[in-house]
Amino acid sequence: MSTAPTGPATGPRKRGRPARTAAADGPATRDRILTAARNEFARHGYDKTSIRGIAKVAEVDPALVHHYFGTKERVFEAAIELILAPAMNAPEVVHGSQEGAGERLARFMFGVWENPATRLPVLAVLRSALTNEAAAAVLRGLIERRVLLRMAGELTVPDPEFRAQLAAGHLIGITMLRYVLRMEPIASAEIDDIVAMVGPTLERYLTEN
Amino acid sequence: MSTAPTGPATGPRKRGRPARTAAADGPATRDRILTAARNEFARHGYDKTSIRGIAKVAEVDPALVHHYFGTKERVFEAAIELILAPAMNAPEVVHGSQEGAGERLARFMFGVWENPATRLPVLAVLRSALTNEAAAAVLRGLIERRVLLRMAGELTVPDPEFRAQLAAGHLIGITMLRYVLRMEPIASAEIDDIVAMVGPTLERYLTEN
Repeated sequence: MSTAPTGPATGPRKRGRPARTAAADGPATRDRILTAARNEFARHGYDKTSIRGIAKVAEVDPALVHHYFGTKERVFEAAIELILAPAMNAPEVVHGSQEGAGERLARFMFGVWENPATRLPVLAVLRSALTNEAAAAVLRGLIERRVLLRMAGELTVPDPEFRAQLAAGHLIGITMLRYVLRMEPIASAEIDDIVAMVGPTLERYLTEN
Repeated sequence: MSTAPTGPATGPRKRGRPARTAAADGPATRDRILTAARNEFARHGYDKTSIRGIAKVAEVDPALVHHYFGTKERVFEAAIELILAPAMNAPEVVHGSQEGAGERLARFMFGVWENPATRLPVLAVLRSALTNEAAAAVLRGLIERRVLLRMAGELTVPDPEFRAQLAAGHLIGITMLRYVLRMEPIASAEIDDIVAMVGPTLERYLTEN
C-alpha cells in the first residue's frame, strides 16, 4: 500500500536543483508526490500546504509536481480523492433494497467517521473547504461527480439529487456536532441510538415519493 | 443601535500610549470595544483577530480590552453572543403548539441564513469554530447554554437535549451544503421546498415519543 520514498531523507539542498533526475521513473514518482500531497493536506489544510512543501516531502523538484498535476487545486483534487476514498462507496450502500437504505447509509458514514485513521484526514478536507473558496470548489465538484450523482442514480424518487443532498446534509450536520464541535450528549451517544433516529429520516428522503 | 466611535479616526500613535484616557466613560468604552470585536471576528475569524487589533479599531489601549473582557476567548464569547443574537430566539419558536414546531424552526433558521447581514458574520463564527479548538469550545458553551438547553426545556420527548441536537445538526448540515459549499441543486432550491422536506423531520425529532 505504502508509496513512501525508499531513499534516506536528505538535508537541505541547492535551490532549484531537482532532488532526483526522475520523470523517468514516472508512475512511482507520481505516486510519491500524491502520497506526500495527501499527508500535507491532511496535516496542514489547504491554505498552509504549498506545491513547494509537497515537493520537499516527496523529495522531488516542485516543477515535477506541476508536471504531473498542474495547479495546486488539481493536486488537492487528486489528494482528496485518496482521502475520501473510504466514503466514495456510499452510492453502493443505498443500491438494492429500499428498505433499510437509510440505516445502511447512516451506519456506513458513521463507520468512516468513527475510525480516526479516516476521520482526521476527512476533517482536514472539510475544514479546508469551509475556509477556502478554491478548496470548496474542488470538494464540491468531486462530491457531486463521485458521490451525489451516483447516489441519485440509485434513487427512484422525484428530484433524486436534491434528496441525496438532504440526506448528505443531515449526516454532515450530525458529524459536525459529534466530531468537530463535540457537543454533548450527541458526542458520546451510542451510534445505534443515533442511527435509530437518523436512519428513518434518511430513508424517507431517499425512498418516499 | 450603533456604538461606533464618535471621534474622527486617528493616525498612527505612539506605542503603548492609550488612545483615550477612557475607563472613565465605562459602558460607552465597553460597547465600542465590543462593536470592534464583533466586526473584527466577523471579518477575519478567530485565528487572525487579536486583542491588539480590536483595541486599534476601537481606538483604545489593549489593556482596556483585557480590563473589560479578560482573555481573547472571553472577548470572542461576548462578540459572538452579539453575532448569534438573531438565532438565539430559536427556543421560543418551538414553544407552544407541537404541531408545526418543525416547520416553524426550519423557517426561522433559514430566515437567519437568508439575510446576508446575519449570514456572513454567523458563517465567520462557524468557520472559526471549525478551525480553532478554543473558538469551538466557546461556541459550544454558548450554544449549549443559550439555545439547546432552553430548546430542550420546551420539549416533552425522552432525551430532549439529544433530540434538540439532532434537529440543530440537521439544519446546520443543510446550511453547510447550501450556503458554504453551495452545492446544486440545494443551493438554488426554494426555501419552501426545503422546509417541506426538513420540517417534518425536525417535528419528528422534537415531538415524537
